[in-house]
Amino acid sequence: MKKNTDYSLYLCTDEDLMSTQTVEECVELAVRGGCTVIQLREKKLTTREFYHTAQNVLKITRKYNVPLIINDRADIAMAVGADGVHVGQKDLPANVVRKMLGPDKIIGVSCATPEEAVKAAADSADYLGAGAVFPTGTKSDTRPVTRDTLIKITGSVSIPVVAIGGVNRLTAPGLRGTGIKGLAVVSAVAAQPDISAAAAEMLKIYKNL
Amino acid sequence: MKKNTDYSLYLCTDEDLMSTQTVEECVELAVRGGCTVIQLREKKLTTREFYHTAQNVLKITRKYNVPLIINDRADIAMAVGADGVHVGQKDLPANVVRKMLGPDKIIGVSCATPEEAVKAAADSADYLGAGAVFPTGTKSDTRPVTRDTLIKITGSVSIPVVAIGGVNRLTAPGLRGTGIKGLAVVSAVAAQPDISAAAAEMLKIYKNL
Repeated sequence: MKKNTDYSLYLCTDEDLMSTQTVEECVELAVRGGCTVIQLREKKLTTREFYHTAQNVLKITRKYNVPLIINDRADIAMAVGADGVHVGQKDLPANVVRKMLGPDKIIGVSCATPEEAVKAAADSADYLGAGAVFPTGTKSDTRPVTRDTLIKITGSVSIPVVAIGGVNRLTAPGLRGTGIKGLAVVSAVAAQPDISAAAAEMLKIYKNL
Repeated sequence: MKKNTDYSLYLCTDEDLMSTQTVEECVELAVRGGCTVIQLREKKLTTREFYHTAQNVLKITRKYNVPLIINDRADIAMAVGADGVHVGQKDLPANVVRKMLGPDKIIGVSCATPEEAVKAAADSADYLGAGAVFPTGTKSDTRPVTRDTLIKITGSVSIPVVAIGGVNRLTAPGLRGTGIKGLAVVSAVAAQPDISAAAAEMLKIYKNL
């Protein structure tokens, strides 16, 4: 699943921004609509709850043959057999996670500068999440990434870069020509009344970039 | 280090309850005073900060040949090469952590009932932390464990049980005859003006139980 991973529409879950009762429902609707990667990000659950949620979500992503990436917690990724781990600059370094997960798992790194991008690629990251490319209310600790910086980031590495932060149907067209390999979304898909339709629309927007 | 681990005086760190500037200073003073096991519990740090702190503390515990146990985060324990992981009832199950860490690492489990104790032992725990045996301000989510329950817990398993929660020089003598194999302390050592002296006193109290 790692080879030729399709990053076109990458959904980060956020329990505060879902229009469904459960993250499992949200993920299934999103994947049906066209999301190509799921990242499970749970900052409020206990470790045990995160573990059980990851087990449940993995059953769904397996059914649709879409990779499941776990945010931060490499131990939970290993415990459930997820497809990879996404780390931020305040999480474990990518090279440390690589030693734990081995060569076959997907490792992604959040970057806001070309220097961080080059470092992450050297640390064996498989893809980068660059952002926040637009203002966002979802995460308070992201740093702004201008269009120029985003172009420098994609130009500085050979691994795929997805744009994250405030990406929605209105802002996404502004990412044309930046060299990204996918759109990372949170509320633009998960918070919509029709999650599948929102995913389908965002995927279409990406393909038309 | 796992074989014949001496649980006599088991220190859980708590950054809010230290009389020193850093957790590293606290641990070194505690170990010099006689602490036989260190558990690093950091709920407020970022993962990266926890990782770096664990690296630093491990250098100290290695110097004094005392095991370092990481609370909850099996990934951080693996990343730094710590001696084990301690999990609560809301963390990963012990048998899941065992698969990740292998047979040579120490796994501890928090228990408040004989049923939880028996389950943890069956899940390959090496020791149990039973509590809270006395009222405590350190952790808000612990359940009370009476003297009778503590005796039932130690009687229900063959692995060592340490008593935790409100254990200090005034309360510890009340644990005589309960079958415990150590005292787990937080503020009774870490929050004292002379950490080494407090550790030495608590160790003496345990040995005289």
